[in-house]
Amino acid sequence: MAVEIYWGSGSPFAWSVMLAMELKGVAYDSHLLSFSDGDLKKPDFLAMNPRGKVPVVRDGDFTIAESNAILAWLEARAPQPALFGTTPQETGTIWRAVLEHAAYFQHHTHAISGAVFYKKMEEKAEEVKAAAKAVGEELARYEATLAKGPWLAGENMTAADLVAYPHFELFFRLAGRDDVKAFGLGFDKGWDAYPALSAWRGKIKAIPGYDNTYPPHWKG
Amino acid sequence: MAVEIYWGSGSPFAWSVMLAMELKGVAYDSHLLSFSDGDLKKPDFLAMNPRGKVPVVRDGDFTIAESNAILAWLEARAPQPALFGTTPQETGTIWRAVLEHAAYFQHHTHAISGAVFYKKMEEKAEEVKAAAKAVGEELARYEATLAKGPWLAGENMTAADLVAYPHFELFFRLAGRDDVKAFGLGFDKGWDAYPALSAWRGKIKAIPGYDNTYPPHWKG
Repeated sequence: MAVEIYWGSGSPFAWSVMLAMELKGVAYDSHLLSFSDGDLKKPDFLAMNPRGKVPVVRDGDFTIAESNAILAWLEARAPQPALFGTTPQETGTIWRAVLEHAAYFQHHTHAISGAVFYKKMEEKAEEVKAAAKAVGEELARYEATLAKGPWLAGENMTAADLVAYPHFELFFRLAGRDDVKAFGLGFDKGWDAYPALSAWRGKIKAIPGYDNTYPPHWKG
Repeated sequence: MAVEIYWGSGSPFAWSVMLAMELKGVAYDSHLLSFSDGDLKKPDFLAMNPRGKVPVVRDGDFTIAESNAILAWLEARAPQPALFGTTPQETGTIWRAVLEHAAYFQHHTHAISGAVFYKKMEEKAEEVKAAAKAVGEELARYEATLAKGPWLAGENMTAADLVAYPHFELFFRLAGRDDVKAFGLGFDKGWDAYPALSAWRGKIKAIPGYDNTYPPHWKG
C-alpha cells in the first residue's frame, strides 16, 4: 500500500521528504494542501499534526510529522539506498550535517524570509543584515565542502543533501525578487555565485522523479 | 578506549549526551570546559567544532558535534539499550519527539533565557510574554503525555526523554530566580505545578551514573 504524504507547494520540508521517497522508490499518494485556504488549520489536518505543519506522512494507521523524523522513519522502513550511512561514523556525520543545516542556514534564512513576508525589512534592518552575513558565511562553507567532495556529507548522496537542497532553492528564489534585491543583501547573482553548489544542484535535479517533487506553483 | 566528551557545566545539550552514555555504559573521559574563560573560542576547540559549541565527542580520530547527531552516532556505536526504538514506527516517533522538543520547547525557552541573560526583559516584554505562553502550552502537553504513559515517546525511556529533561531543569531553574519571578511569567511553582512531569523527573534522576552528569556549578 502506498504511503500518503500531506504537503504544501514550496514547503522545503515536504520537498526533502518527497525527494527521499523518490530515491528509495517508495510509492506515495500525494495530498497537496493549500496554505492560503487554511488547509493546515482544519480539524482533520490538526488531528494528524496538532502543530499544523507539513509534511505529514501516513502509512496505514501510523502518522508522523517533522520532516527529519519522517526521514528517520523512512530510512528504517525502506533502508535502500541508505541516506543515513552504513557505519556509526557515517550516520553521525550525516545527522550532524542535517541538524547544522537546520540550526544555521535555515535559522538565518528564516529571519530574512520572515522579514520579507511580514514586510518588516526596514523595521528589522539590523537583524536582517546580520542574518544575511551569516547566510553568506554558510553558503561559503557549503561551496568549500562541495569544491572538495561530491556531496555534503561523504562520498554518497545522503539525507544531508536532500534536506539542504530545497532550502537553497527557496532562498535563492527569494533573494532574486526585485523587492528583496533592493535591500542589497548580496545574493543578486543567486546560484551563479557558487559554482560547486550549482554543479551539485544539477545532480540533485537529475534524481529520477525530481519533477514530481518540484513546487507546482513555481512551474510555468 | 574511552570516548572523550568536551562539555560545559549546565549545557543541556551536553547533559543529554552524558546521560545517554551512562545509560549505554559507554565509558567516557570528561573534559569540562569553561564558558567564561572562553574555552569554546580557543583554536584547539574550534578545530574540533568550528561552531564553537559543546558538546563535542571524540572517538579515536573521529570527531562529532551537535548533540542529537552525537546521540544518533552513539545509538549505532552502542545499540543497547535502544534509545531510538527498534521498529521504523518507534524510531520515527522518537525522532519526532526529539525534534519537536527542539523546535518548540527549546525555541521558546531560548527566547526567554536570552532576554534574561542580555537584560532585555523590559525591551522584549511582548516577545517574552508570547514565549512564556508557548512554554506553558508545551509543558501542559508534556504533563498530559506523562499522565497517560510512563515516558515521552512510548513504553520505554528513549532519546526523547534524555533530550527533553535537561532543558526542563534549566528552564525551571531560570524561572525560579527572584529577578525572573518578578516578571510574573507564571512558572513560580516550578516542577510542583506538574505532578506527572515531576514523577518522570524522579525516574530520570534514578539513572545509575546520573550524578556524574549533574552540572558541577549547580552543586552545593
